[in-house]
Amino acid sequence: MLIIKVGGGKNINWKHVCADLAVLARSEPVVLVHGASVKRDEVAQKLGITTRYLTSPSGQVGVYTDKSAIEVMSMVYAGLVNKQVVAMLQQAGVNAVGLSGADGRIWEGKRKTNLIGVENGKNKLIRDTYTGKVEQVNTDLLKLLIKHDYLPVVTQPAISFEGDLINTDNDRNIAVMARDLACTKLVVLFEAPGLLQNADDETSLIKKVKRTEIDLVMYQVSGRMKKKVLGAKEALGFGVVEIYWGDARIKNPVMSALAGNGTVIS
Amino acid sequence: MLIIKVGGGKNINWKHVCADLAVLARSEPVVLVHGASVKRDEVAQKLGITTRYLTSPSGQVGVYTDKSAIEVMSMVYAGLVNKQVVAMLQQAGVNAVGLSGADGRIWEGKRKTNLIGVENGKNKLIRDTYTGKVEQVNTDLLKLLIKHDYLPVVTQPAISFEGDLINTDNDRNIAVMARDLACTKLVVLFEAPGLLQNADDETSLIKKVKRTEIDLVMYQVSGRMKKKVLGAKEALGFGVVEIYWGDARIKNPVMSALAGNGTVIS
Repeated sequence: MLIIKVGGGKNINWKHVCADLAVLARSEPVVLVHGASVKRDEVAQKLGITTRYLTSPSGQVGVYTDKSAIEVMSMVYAGLVNKQVVAMLQQAGVNAVGLSGADGRIWEGKRKTNLIGVENGKNKLIRDTYTGKVEQVNTDLLKLLIKHDYLPVVTQPAISFEGDLINTDNDRNIAVMARDLACTKLVVLFEAPGLLQNADDETSLIKKVKRTEIDLVMYQVSGRMKKKVLGAKEALGFGVVEIYWGDARIKNPVMSALAGNGTVIS
Repeated sequence: MLIIKVGGGKNINWKHVCADLAVLARSEPVVLVHGASVKRDEVAQKLGITTRYLTSPSGQVGVYTDKSAIEVMSMVYAGLVNKQVVAMLQQAGVNAVGLSGADGRIWEGKRKTNLIGVENGKNKLIRDTYTGKVEQVNTDLLKLLIKHDYLPVVTQPAISFEGDLINTDNDRNIAVMARDLACTKLVVLFEAPGLLQNADDETSLIKKVKRTEIDLVMYQVSGRMKKKVLGAKEALGFGVVEIYWGDARIKNPVMSALAGNGTVIS
């Protein structure tokens, strides 16, 4: 089984991704996980919803997913992009089934309540944030669909143990999925050729990262890339043997990543 | 098996609907179909997308579902409302799985291309409309989920044979679902006590409609109610024996409708 994660960037070439999946899915069960962050931001802006941020007492800045933020997230991830991807896969001859992490509790975890945020220098108790961490995966449902030749296309939101829709981290989610599905290979596609030595220079591709070097890499990257490295580290800890990072903008993006043309972490 | 359709009105009490489904689903397989028209209009307006209408040469007015309209529809039906309903069912202890008609081609049909519309007194060929008619249902997927104790929650959009997302009519869709699933009972809930003699008078409830009277009823109703009656007529033609119309705003809305407190068409 192969878990493939595709980012939510503007220049993801979904036609190319779907064409590859149509070929791959014939010989190996595939679970697709996708983002939609750029489209989410675009729709949120049009709706007049500004992304709020939360600064923790230690200074870490995270997204403050309030009620309207989780609603926009559900709309864009599970509604707009998920169904567009499903339609494209169907056009490519793949019987895709789009699901959010809430459906059948595919991604279930703990909602973070009682967060402490800093506002104007003062600590403040934040209770209305819909964010959390996936702890378990409904592998029965995923396996059931795969067994009957459906390709699951999974996205945000996830669901809390209490049944609230929550925003979680896809990079961590694929690690937990790999653990629970006993999957040893991950493909992660985004808008770069792979891990770059210098984020602004696409020719500075690092082709191989040994699992022992992952902590070192963590110090070299920043922003969203840090989350990807953290997810990769978790996945390796959960038994994943090889992680293929690759470019989602090119032709045959999945095949190319699997051929080692991006970054291979092993 | 019971197919339950809940409308997309503002005052639908989803808490009450979900509480009933939690009890019902213990003794009988249930498929839930829902709308989201009011929320769709609200989001479309905020996004600055105005609903376009199409007048046919014979004078019939229908919604003109262009690219942006089908996108908003996917967002609100399959993303926002579908996942909110799934979360509420999960909170009520029901393992709900939300799906659009595109997922696994649950609702598959013909996209209407080459429509003729009248604009400024002139006939015009309309090619960019994403609307259609469901012809077949992926009963295998629905039965598979039901067999494994999931409650399918199905909504717009559907998918065309060519793989385009299309806007279809839920009242017709439940008729086709009843036919393909060999289901003899339908429950249809909306924001009225049932079929009314006088649309403005909620006390003018018609408690029983014989199947032979359905054509007569068609001439007495207008607007969205006409579509409901048309759907009921189709369902009866497809082998449905009893259709229960009831109020989605009250406590125990499903049980109440099944007890004959709304309109029973048989």
